[in-house]
Amino acid sequence: MVLFPDRRSSDEENLGVDWVIRYRFDGADTTSAIEEFRTLIRDLDEAGLRTQVRHGNGSSLLVFVNAPRERLGHEIFKSRVKDWLDGVSDIRPVGDSQTVIDGDTEAEELRSVHHLVTGRKDDGGAEVTANRGKWKNITACFPLHSPNANRGLFRRWSRIRILEAEDLDGLRALFGEKVALYFAFGQCYGFFLAGAAVFATLSWMYYGPYSIGLSVISSLWCIVFVEYWKVQQTDLAIRWGSRGAREAKVNRLHNVWDKGSEGHETTLKTKEIYQAEKQLLRQLPQFVFALAASLIIGSLVLVAFTVELLLSEVYRGPFKAFLDFLPTISLALSLPTINSVLNKAAARLTDYENYPTEAQYEVALTQKTFVSRFITYFLPLLLTAFIYVPFGDRIGPSLDAAHLTWLSTRIPRHIDSRRLQQQVISFVLMTVMLQFRERNFLPRGAQISFMKYLHYLPDRPADILHPYRRSNSSSLLLIDHPEESGFLSRVRDETEASVRDVQDNLLEICVQFGYLALFGAAWPLVPLVFLFLHWTGFRSELFKTIMERQRPAPLRTDTIGPCLRILEFVAWMGCLSTAAIVHLYRRDVRRVELWSLLLTIFVAEQFYYVARYFIRSVLQKIGSETIHREEARRDAVQRRYMETFSEEAAELCRVYKPRVRFNEIMDVMIETNRRDSTAASSECTHPSKDETEDGNESQIPQKISRRTNTDLLRDAEKSTRFWSWYQTPQETIEAGIKLIEAISVASRLGRSSGSGQVTPKKAD
Amino acid sequence: MVLFPDRRSSDEENLGVDWVIRYRFDGADTTSAIEEFRTLIRDLDEAGLRTQVRHGNGSSLLVFVNAPRERLGHEIFKSRVKDWLDGVSDIRPVGDSQTVIDGDTEAEELRSVHHLVTGRKDDGGAEVTANRGKWKNITACFPLHSPNANRGLFRRWSRIRILEAEDLDGLRALFGEKVALYFAFGQCYGFFLAGAAVFATLSWMYYGPYSIGLSVISSLWCIVFVEYWKVQQTDLAIRWGSRGAREAKVNRLHNVWDKGSEGHETTLKTKEIYQAEKQLLRQLPQFVFALAASLIIGSLVLVAFTVELLLSEVYRGPFKAFLDFLPTISLALSLPTINSVLNKAAARLTDYENYPTEAQYEVALTQKTFVSRFITYFLPLLLTAFIYVPFGDRIGPSLDAAHLTWLSTRIPRHIDSRRLQQQVISFVLMTVMLQFRERNFLPRGAQISFMKYLHYLPDRPADILHPYRRSNSSSLLLIDHPEESGFLSRVRDETEASVRDVQDNLLEICVQFGYLALFGAAWPLVPLVFLFLHWTGFRSELFKTIMERQRPAPLRTDTIGPCLRILEFVAWMGCLSTAAIVHLYRRDVRRVELWSLLLTIFVAEQFYYVARYFIRSVLQKIGSETIHREEARRDAVQRRYMETFSEEAAELCRVYKPRVRFNEIMDVMIETNRRDSTAASSECTHPSKDETEDGNESQIPQKISRRTNTDLLRDAEKSTRFWSWYQTPQETIEAGIKLIEAISVASRLGRSSGSGQVTPKKAD
Repeated sequence: MVLFPDRRSSDEENLGVDWVIRYRFDGADTTSAIEEFRTLIRDLDEAGLRTQVRHGNGSSLLVFVNAPRERLGHEIFKSRVKDWLDGVSDIRPVGDSQTVIDGDTEAEELRSVHHLVTGRKDDGGAEVTANRGKWKNITACFPLHSPNANRGLFRRWSRIRILEAEDLDGLRALFGEKVALYFAFGQCYGFFLAGAAVFATLSWMYYGPYSIGLSVISSLWCIVFVEYWKVQQTDLAIRWGSRGAREAKVNRLHNVWDKGSEGHETTLKTKEIYQAEKQLLRQLPQFVFALAASLIIGSLVLVAFTVELLLSEVYRGPFKAFLDFLPTISLALSLPTINSVLNKAAARLTDYENYPTEAQYEVALTQKTFVSRFITYFLPLLLTAFIYVPFGDRIGPSLDAAHLTWLSTRIPRHIDSRRLQQQVISFVLMTVMLQFRERNFLPRGAQISFMKYLHYLPDRPADILHPYRRSNSSSLLLIDHPEESGFLSRVRDETEASVRDVQDNLLEICVQFGYLALFGAAWPLVPLVFLFLHWTGFRSELFKTIMERQRPAPLRTDTIGPCLRILEFVAWMGCLSTAAIVHLYRRDVRRVELWSLLLTIFVAEQFYYVARYFIRSVLQKIGSETIHREEARRDAVQRRYMETFSEEAAELCRVYKPRVRFNEIMDVMIETNRRDSTAASSECTHPSKDETEDGNESQIPQKISRRTNTDLLRDAEKSTRFWSWYQTPQETIEAGIKLIEAISVASRLGRSSGSGQVTPKKAD
Repeated sequence: MVLFPDRRSSDEENLGVDWVIRYRFDGADTTSAIEEFRTLIRDLDEAGLRTQVRHGNGSSLLVFVNAPRERLGHEIFKSRVKDWLDGVSDIRPVGDSQTVIDGDTEAEELRSVHHLVTGRKDDGGAEVTANRGKWKNITACFPLHSPNANRGLFRRWSRIRILEAEDLDGLRALFGEKVALYFAFGQCYGFFLAGAAVFATLSWMYYGPYSIGLSVISSLWCIVFVEYWKVQQTDLAIRWGSRGAREAKVNRLHNVWDKGSEGHETTLKTKEIYQAEKQLLRQLPQFVFALAASLIIGSLVLVAFTVELLLSEVYRGPFKAFLDFLPTISLALSLPTINSVLNKAAARLTDYENYPTEAQYEVALTQKTFVSRFITYFLPLLLTAFIYVPFGDRIGPSLDAAHLTWLSTRIPRHIDSRRLQQQVISFVLMTVMLQFRERNFLPRGAQISFMKYLHYLPDRPADILHPYRRSNSSSLLLIDHPEESGFLSRVRDETEASVRDVQDNLLEICVQFGYLALFGAAWPLVPLVFLFLHWTGFRSELFKTIMERQRPAPLRTDTIGPCLRILEFVAWMGCLSTAAIVHLYRRDVRRVELWSLLLTIFVAEQFYYVARYFIRSVLQKIGSETIHREEARRDAVQRRYMETFSEEAAELCRVYKPRVRFNEIMDVMIETNRRDSTAASSECTHPSKDETEDGNESQIPQKISRRTNTDLLRDAEKSTRFWSWYQTPQETIEAGIKLIEAISVASRLGRSSGSGQVTPKKAD
């Protein structure tokens, strides 16, 4: 079940490695690869980072990056200053250009390393980003997992069912606010689903589909969910001191497209206005894109629909039961492909639109991706519900008019109104299968077999095991040092691990929420199905984050941002759609009058706005505990400051950072994972909940110190040895060049001798 | 034309008087009046304020308040600290409990005096507010106008037609952000009206009423106005450094109802939550109120409508032309009365709802007031447009059913669809007349005649002139000192002057905007009529602020707040209403199908949301000059700080206060009106535009110093004499008691001798 920690290497530390870059080169063009590698190491060196090089899987090198204590400490200080300047934090960090401080959490330190590696050169970074522009040969650029912290999390999560505030704090300390916020949101969504499933299923058992009562309740429930999450999100942002982090232009650093319009960040007002107008113009093509996509999907649905009608009525041959559903099934199966094409187009369009900050880029991309999903998954259902079934009677006459009398006599005069329900069921189940497969089987299955393939003889000695063993000339270079081999093979596994942005998961939830809000009335079991999917998927997502995925760069945010607007839009659309579906399908579709339908929709829309206004007012007035505590605390401290005007009171005054209570395990985990000045001593303890539960509280520090005495020294020595292989950037470059040449030779040899396993990927 | 400055006294200064309180007592109950007066002076003394007492008009005393230099300077410092704590300003003022600073503008200093006089005792204030709770006998509590600054403004405004940024800065420096923001908004609205008037009139000339093109354009124009104003408002808030001032709980100080729930501002969270829930419950009655009001007005309109129908068709006697319109006219004339009743109910309800901050209170009150205006002025028109005219055909049959066959045969079978237009015209003209009268004639006319009455013999010597001249026993006390008499009679005039909150003017604009957005399609001349009203009213409003009104307490805000939401609501409603009216009345009302009407409204609503989204995105992206400049400045300063980490850079970093350019006249005005340590030397110059225009620029400082040499000394002496009459609070109290007794005697004598002029008001 677990991919990384069960390996032999898992007991080892990260040897002071902050960041790993995987440089992949095509064996054929050795010269340009050497040149590129040289630039890479120099760029990293110029940013003040230490580097080591080892060989990776296939034709690739692993560059290990370590940010020296002074460099990192100052970068953290600078990011705190930037927070203060941007209004994220209200406390001004005291210091100058020499100040060095520790980060509060591992995530904060890694975020600073992230800035150093990927930040713009103007800001002191190295401008190294994966798969983008000039560095398209860098296929991975990520921080390493903390095996010990992950093991602690794993033990805890195996016992609990519900993430508590402390668990979210732990996630934030290790993976940053963005990931932690996603899990908080996922859990909130789970509760919402549970509630919806309970009353939808009950209502379905007693009243069947198209129940008016259920529609009203579930529309209200959707609004409550969205508004409740807004309060929760503020609560967490206050708790983590990340309020306003999204708006702060922190991520402006590594946008590639900035190079086209160098200097637009100058203080020239006119230039900025020009940029804004130009950018507005550049946003126009997206409407053409959305229209075209809608037309294509719409006509696809029309074709599938007509074929299905014909088949069901005209065809009388064998496999009829199967063939009847063939068009809908093939439509459903072709949708993911269409969606991925649309997604690519959306990404292209967003690149073209040239946003100055990463946050704006993300908003635009997420919106476009959602529009493409909306068109793919919801448009067919909307067309069925509001066009084909109600107006299906007119298909016959129109075929007559088109001189297709043979057809028109054969298709039915009235479309069965159960079609909508059938289609909703098939679409929902298809989505469930897709998301389930994607989350649970495909990547893990693919990965495990791939890993097995790479390490098919795990118990033999290292020199025999190595895939390059056949190449004699380069064997000395390509064999791992025994002391490092476990660590290196863990790193190699992590480079191959899948990368998944939480934004994708958020969008999946948005799509689920869309089915539920828009078509829940037609098939009230929708929330139950999604509840099943969510609770299985959500837990496995949690475990996969620490076990099967590359560790994400710990980004910071205070909101789920664009997805929140999508949820609001879906709740609004759901209110209208539910009202219309219930009105249309509750009785005979043909006897519904147009004016009464329109009146229903109009009333539903006003109902939505009024309900949202009241729910929002009430929830925001009641607020959350953290928000109230924060307000009360601020009031108290402010009063104190007004009385004393003292420096200490001033320090306390404007910090949006209440003291967060960690339970012991989390405290230990986060404390011990905090990197100290010799970068090697990080992750030096084994904090396990089982142990701390057995012993009393005073034992915990003893345990830490015991480990410090016995193992820390060994770890530090090992780490020192690791970083002493190549002392200067020049040595690293030379070592890298030798490795590139050796691997090229080995790869050519391997190819000529027919052994495909040397370069598992890209081996041409 | 000018009420205050043309008087003999206008050349004098305010003699160091910061605030004036008028205490009115009923001549009958002298003992309790004395006790109350004693409490007043003690409260003011406890707040650290100096006081003097003189007699006012009728049975009233004038209490003059001066905030000593140290007290005021520290209060200004504390308010700056509070700004920093609340995040309004980003710079932390350095100082302790002894720090004394100058305000940037006269308005800032007066705001601090305002806090001292009206603030809660916990916060060091005196809790003295006019017409509220324990101080219901205090009928006025206000700062004095600056005659010289006002004269400068008057000269400038006589020459210009459009307020420029500098004029707004000047208004802000004298009257505070709230007033200045109102004038900025009023001007913005004027431009909007001008645009609307131009194309509406053109469209009316070519296409008549109910034009589709005009409806679309004017709906869009309304949205553009609202969104454009939002950008402008942010621009001004940045310019004046008041961003976030509305949300800061500055005004929480003097809410009277806090006393009922003393201590809810403690840090206890549970109590706050309880408060929130209790308050939510208390907000429920307003819906009953709104419903009842709607029903009453609705039935009134129904009655008027039926009577009018009957009269027009049945009555054949004399004065028919007049009697036909009698019901509508009486309805229109009764509406202001109904509205004022509703307003009072709204104020009661808002008091009952018990808001913790003044800003929330204002929002709730404004919303309720608008709802009552909406019901009064718009509901009749909406009923006519969408119920009576379209469904008028059914009145006959329903009368039949009610066995009123005699009536049913006599009223017409079809209602003339021009009725709507007629009613819109009469309502708009009524509103124009009402607002015009209110703004231009009534208060000024009433005031002037009242003032004339009080000073009907302006040229005789002071001892003969005085209204109390017949009372020999108290004549010495009640006769003004010749040196002060001019100043005192100016102050007495100001106490009688009208008080008008800009919130009322904002609501008037909202009502105008409502007519225009909702019914502009029926009579496209609406914007032209309002344009006429606005440009006359707006200028006179400007002049009245400095000449006929009490100077308002200089409150601070960064938005027009609740009115903005009202404008958004009206724009939304206007979009729907315009679409429906055009659809219904464009051709024959009877031939309109319900479904097509509903479809039109539905499409119009979606059109509104989409258009608003795009207009908002575009306008916010383009932004305003100040916003861009501010962003660029921040970027530059931040970069500098990141490079140097110096204190100076830190000071500059987070201030939202760009250097505001005043033109010379404003600079002189504001500089010279800035109070200095000897409170008397304020307003010591005569900065007149005419002079500065003639002379060259270098002369201005000379003029100031010339005046300083000649007149400043005299002014300071005069001021010292004024404040030395009563040295201690005890002396003030004794003087006040003597005055109360003397006035009571005089009042009794006056009554017995039948002279009504002694106590012009409340003299029973």
